[in-house]
Amino acid sequence: MTKKRIALLGSTGSIGTQALDVLSAQPDAFTVQVLTAQHNADLLIQQAIQFRPAEVVIGNEELVSKVKIALEPLGIRVYSGPEALASVVESDSVDLVLTALVGYSGLLPTLRAIRAGKAIALANKETLVVAGALVTQLAREHQVPIFPVDSEHSAIFQCLVGEENNPIEKIILTASGGPFRGKDRAYLSTVTRAQALKHPNWSMGAKITIDSASLMNKGLEVIEAKWLFDLEPSQIEVIVHPQSIIHSLVQFEDGSLKAQLGLPDMRLPIQYALAYPQRLKADFPRFDFAQYPSLTFEPADTQTFRNLALAYEALAKGGNSACIINAANEVAVAAFLQDEISFLDMSDVIETCTAKVAFIENPQYTDYVETDQETRRIAAELIHEKV
Amino acid sequence: MTKKRIALLGSTGSIGTQALDVLSAQPDAFTVQVLTAQHNADLLIQQAIQFRPAEVVIGNEELVSKVKIALEPLGIRVYSGPEALASVVESDSVDLVLTALVGYSGLLPTLRAIRAGKAIALANKETLVVAGALVTQLAREHQVPIFPVDSEHSAIFQCLVGEENNPIEKIILTASGGPFRGKDRAYLSTVTRAQALKHPNWSMGAKITIDSASLMNKGLEVIEAKWLFDLEPSQIEVIVHPQSIIHSLVQFEDGSLKAQLGLPDMRLPIQYALAYPQRLKADFPRFDFAQYPSLTFEPADTQTFRNLALAYEALAKGGNSACIINAANEVAVAAFLQDEISFLDMSDVIETCTAKVAFIENPQYTDYVETDQETRRIAAELIHEKV
Repeated sequence: MTKKRIALLGSTGSIGTQALDVLSAQPDAFTVQVLTAQHNADLLIQQAIQFRPAEVVIGNEELVSKVKIALEPLGIRVYSGPEALASVVESDSVDLVLTALVGYSGLLPTLRAIRAGKAIALANKETLVVAGALVTQLAREHQVPIFPVDSEHSAIFQCLVGEENNPIEKIILTASGGPFRGKDRAYLSTVTRAQALKHPNWSMGAKITIDSASLMNKGLEVIEAKWLFDLEPSQIEVIVHPQSIIHSLVQFEDGSLKAQLGLPDMRLPIQYALAYPQRLKADFPRFDFAQYPSLTFEPADTQTFRNLALAYEALAKGGNSACIINAANEVAVAAFLQDEISFLDMSDVIETCTAKVAFIENPQYTDYVETDQETRRIAAELIHEKV
Repeated sequence: MTKKRIALLGSTGSIGTQALDVLSAQPDAFTVQVLTAQHNADLLIQQAIQFRPAEVVIGNEELVSKVKIALEPLGIRVYSGPEALASVVESDSVDLVLTALVGYSGLLPTLRAIRAGKAIALANKETLVVAGALVTQLAREHQVPIFPVDSEHSAIFQCLVGEENNPIEKIILTASGGPFRGKDRAYLSTVTRAQALKHPNWSMGAKITIDSASLMNKGLEVIEAKWLFDLEPSQIEVIVHPQSIIHSLVQFEDGSLKAQLGLPDMRLPIQYALAYPQRLKADFPRFDFAQYPSLTFEPADTQTFRNLALAYEALAKGGNSACIINAANEVAVAAFLQDEISFLDMSDVIETCTAKVAFIENPQYTDYVETDQETRRIAAELIHEKV
């Protein structure tokens, strides 16, 4: 078997470190060609010493000399800065790019990787949220597959294997409901950062954990699903499933539903995206019905968790709307994590941004860049007024 | 689209009539070439007038002249008897044979259809239970696909589409638990035929409904799954799932589980078996989580429902063991339906037969025929002693 050569963008984050767990457990299937990180030079150095990539990129230019001193003696090439991040993925020695960057920053390197004809394993949902039309169009032109890493989209993707000629009637994305499931807005007005960071089922990075608590994560996933699976908004449903065992479902035109299930463990969808269409034997802990005698389901409360409704509205409106809510949300989440605004303020910031930023019906790449910048500016102003 | 030409064996039973529902709703996909029934001449005549098959077979020879008088003026050829049943499936004008016969009687026509190179949609699980080694070997030799119609096996089959190169780690067959779920042997010793015929979720024929109440149906399904999916007994698990929404699951070697779900409605797996690999658009009622807020699971109680344990034992022993328990069960169920023996007597009859009938390690077709006859003789004697 030829080993697949992987570029891992964002190797020191939650998805990145779990991806390296997978890669180290499957040495016959993969080699690590590129590792990149933004700030965590120490962990990047440690990872590079273990996995011996040909190239590493450290985003923060102040840290580049430290990384060079540690890794150049091992024959590892070290670069820095956003252009370096976008160019390492183009190397002839890379077969597949796993983009595990956080937020908007994932867009540019993903576009470059697609143009270079690299298969994409996409853990950065914001890339499709911001610029889904552009990214999927480009992927079609370059005949590049995009393998989802999000557990919900991986579930859908797994259910669609072999069903290429059978149209999707609808998909059902499951949501854990987060730490505040069943709470009302009075309760949400009081919640702290620490409470919001305690996800009941999944261990993830800070940004996505806050997004899960506000249901914005599910909203972003709805938009992501639209682009990954070429669906109308009306074909995408959300159901709250507190146990996070059924990762999502597809319904076909004969009425049959297929679902993918398992313990909440990101290593499985990561490995599937890297190894598709193969399922590599792995010793991840197995699901057991004895430990889950009841799987429960309830509707999502979009009155209380307005972000999910805002995401559906942005999806229906199209154009640069999803780019606006994504940028506003990134700024709002960062401000909430800094204790600058309250939990419910986040929705207010996003909603106000959707009203204030100019709508563009058919945005090009530069329009997305400008929308992102303009939204961030307005969101920062709104937050400044609240502080 | 070329229409698939269907021979429907057992058209007047529960599966047969539901299959005709499917076929009449999909006139662009199928034509009905052959209909057969054992005793119900009136319904067979009515069906033939509606679907205009080229040939019909009435099993009971006393009814053949009645059927001829009704159908020959329409240009429909009418035959009778077991040899006719086995030979109509060989017609050049048949593409796929749906065997919806009850019990052991399905074996011979299925073997003949396979030898004639016809695709098989198998609703008659006893065919694989009795002679799985023979049937699957023959299907391989003739490169004939066997599409399962049982909802559990259809679920597995649907989950395996596109996964041909990914080994199965295990499958989990779901069982409703039947009308006596949670009851003990003291309770079972008192149950009546009418109670046993009330299945909580599925509307089916009498024989399979009793088998569901005794969990023998699940035992037969375990054996059927072994042959359909080429599994070891240890790879086949059973879980009780009272709502009958998850129809079964497959676990792959990466730990991922796939499941097929839907309302309990046999028309879906029937249509899937007929139309595979296509999913035809259909207006079967859709599953809705709002109506099923909780899906529950519990272990199967093989102490109380001994038939399931007996089936696993027969599977482990191999040879003609499954043929023995199937024949003993058919006789025992018939006797229970005649109020000749009690509910718990059925397991006793089966267990005694497994001890009394000679074990044959590598049975050929004639060995199965003899095992079946010998078992029926002994079972009848045992029942006679009890009456």
